[in-house]
Amino acid sequence: MSVKRKAVVLIADGLGDRLAPALGNRTPLEAAATPALDRLAAEGVVGLMDPIKPGVVAGSDTAHLSILGMDPYAVYTGRGPFEAAGIGMEVRGGDVAFRVNFSTVDDDLVVTDRRAGRISSGTDQLARALNGMDLGDGVTAFFKESVAHRGALVLRGQGLGAAVTDVDPHATGEKVWTAVGSDPASEKTARAVNTFVRRSFEVLSAHPINQERIRQGLNPANIALPRGIGVAPDVAPFDEAWHVKSACLVETGLIRGIGIYLAMDIIDVPGANGGLDSDVMATAQAIVDALADHDFVLCNIKGPDVAGHDGQAEAKAKMIERIDSAVAHIYAHIEPDVSLLFTGDHATPCEVGDHTGDPVPVVIWGPSLVPDAVTTFSERAATAGGLGRIRGVDVMPIMTNLMGVQHKFGA
Amino acid sequence: MSVKRKAVVLIADGLGDRLAPALGNRTPLEAAATPALDRLAAEGVVGLMDPIKPGVVAGSDTAHLSILGMDPYAVYTGRGPFEAAGIGMEVRGGDVAFRVNFSTVDDDLVVTDRRAGRISSGTDQLARALNGMDLGDGVTAFFKESVAHRGALVLRGQGLGAAVTDVDPHATGEKVWTAVGSDPASEKTARAVNTFVRRSFEVLSAHPINQERIRQGLNPANIALPRGIGVAPDVAPFDEAWHVKSACLVETGLIRGIGIYLAMDIIDVPGANGGLDSDVMATAQAIVDALADHDFVLCNIKGPDVAGHDGQAEAKAKMIERIDSAVAHIYAHIEPDVSLLFTGDHATPCEVGDHTGDPVPVVIWGPSLVPDAVTTFSERAATAGGLGRIRGVDVMPIMTNLMGVQHKFGA
Repeated sequence: MSVKRKAVVLIADGLGDRLAPALGNRTPLEAAATPALDRLAAEGVVGLMDPIKPGVVAGSDTAHLSILGMDPYAVYTGRGPFEAAGIGMEVRGGDVAFRVNFSTVDDDLVVTDRRAGRISSGTDQLARALNGMDLGDGVTAFFKESVAHRGALVLRGQGLGAAVTDVDPHATGEKVWTAVGSDPASEKTARAVNTFVRRSFEVLSAHPINQERIRQGLNPANIALPRGIGVAPDVAPFDEAWHVKSACLVETGLIRGIGIYLAMDIIDVPGANGGLDSDVMATAQAIVDALADHDFVLCNIKGPDVAGHDGQAEAKAKMIERIDSAVAHIYAHIEPDVSLLFTGDHATPCEVGDHTGDPVPVVIWGPSLVPDAVTTFSERAATAGGLGRIRGVDVMPIMTNLMGVQHKFGA
Repeated sequence: MSVKRKAVVLIADGLGDRLAPALGNRTPLEAAATPALDRLAAEGVVGLMDPIKPGVVAGSDTAHLSILGMDPYAVYTGRGPFEAAGIGMEVRGGDVAFRVNFSTVDDDLVVTDRRAGRISSGTDQLARALNGMDLGDGVTAFFKESVAHRGALVLRGQGLGAAVTDVDPHATGEKVWTAVGSDPASEKTARAVNTFVRRSFEVLSAHPINQERIRQGLNPANIALPRGIGVAPDVAPFDEAWHVKSACLVETGLIRGIGIYLAMDIIDVPGANGGLDSDVMATAQAIVDALADHDFVLCNIKGPDVAGHDGQAEAKAKMIERIDSAVAHIYAHIEPDVSLLFTGDHATPCEVGDHTGDPVPVVIWGPSLVPDAVTTFSERAATAGGLGRIRGVDVMPIMTNLMGVQHKFGA
């Protein structure tokens, strides 16, 4: 195709909602004044999007995988691989990865503090003592610290499965559990996990950092407890899969991890803190700037999800108004041939305080669209939209079609 | 079911389009006067159709496979098998087939003329010299000439793959490439292809037809270069799969090849030439006639795609008006209980000059439909249609449901 264009996919995390009594039985998006989004709707096409499929309650991670063109049922078994990638660990297809807590246990391996006194320094040295450990069976453990008491573990070896029970009892006063695998590949993983946990207790108990903590009356970080197991999927780098040069501007570590895993260019925006006071105008300008040397930009603004989890409908409407200003800034500063898609990765209704499987409104604005009759942007208005009802996994084919970078399937 | 009815699926190739400045920012379908299509819309139901799935840029071949009820991702690896079937070759499930160019190479196998002086006679004798060749490994080559310098090659043998690199360098001055397979099955195919190409050079160089061409100062057709590799899918004959007696009236060889491959009755319409001056009224009458002894008729009229590829919005609108007259003729002459579906196989927007992944409008007219409120037929009007957004692969279930010939799934 001759025409090559750029595109932005802007995701307001947890955007979708339900009728809120506090807002006169309107959704936060309906109650918010959103002139910029309404203009996108009037000039473009709107519809409803099921992040995964109708009714399915999506996580932010599985929804983003879907929106980035993958089948989350095929590539997602747990968040571990993306957490590990997000803190800069190398994760290869077939690796099994975990989030890890440094915790405190007594000599009988009963958990006395799941967060090891919220340890705030020295975990890099503890991590180094665990990294590169040979767990037998040809399995090697790679370990890296994250913030506070957190870290990530990557197991590398042939034929590792992910159907493995937890070792972290998720409660104090309980003994660390023994991992069990439900098939031969997962049994191999379970053996490696149990070995890792036991060895972590031996290594960490003796570590000078913990000897010093005990001297200071602090809980030692004397065990590493993995959870959130996932098999790292074998996926092509995003730019290779979609014939684009992409940038990823996101506020949450997990989505950042997905971007890193897909080898997207990660752009950090100072002031984009993932909260209700996040500097969304800085994010808007960063999107405009990123378009100078990228042709596809993914952005996630976390605020609406935070308000939704807190059940704060008014705060959510206000956050959406702030995002609307950012959209106005983008609209005013991008080239006229850029396509822009705005949606949520899932609904986080204030009445629930958690994700739901409701469809979310979506608007696509840009050249080459046959417009529909909808002139405002909301859950309700989107039901009459010309896009109809699409799925998260449709986003990349639709956008690369508008960009003119997709290869024809057939002749 | 007690009621059995007949149905017509009429496809205007490349029908879908975008807003064209030359037409006052209307699509060709919007700009065209289409009283017959509007009547279908007013009396029937309309919607949008994604030939494959939202955003995916379809070829005419993959779109028709989808509309005929197959999953193109499962059955389509390349156009070779349908090209070969289209010129009357036997193609069986598991065969690997190619389009072939007779070309001219020098003694070092450097291509000097990709079309062998546009050779126009004698290729039947050249083809006979290549047909039936034993390529070793239990692989046999079947070869047949097509028009001008073209032909098709079918390889038959156990376990042949299609992940094989090209041998045709697609440029003069370059040496013929060596095919390479990316897995054991495809390596077997690659060996057969390389043997075929080398042997074709030996056989064709020595052939009297070419000796004579050289004497006359014409480029000899001294090598056969395969491309467009595809594995022939193992699919049931169309009539068996859908419990119909079908006819296929199409203007393009590739779609004709699909019809032949599916063992549909092929009906040739004199004057239906695939161009903007195609005798669409003859086609309309042929559809009416075909319904006498068939209960399902597939028809493809190529014109709109031709105009779209040429970027001629006015010509496309005019072609659509001609097709509308054909629809009026069909409407006037079919029995009142025949169902008629009209759509495009994909969009070929004039602004792009090639296929895009935009959805296309679709209208279904006939008895037993609950009508919607839409009274005109266009990309824009279809966004409000009662069909919603369907996929190409939904067409056959929808039509055989209306026909009353579908078997119940379940009890």
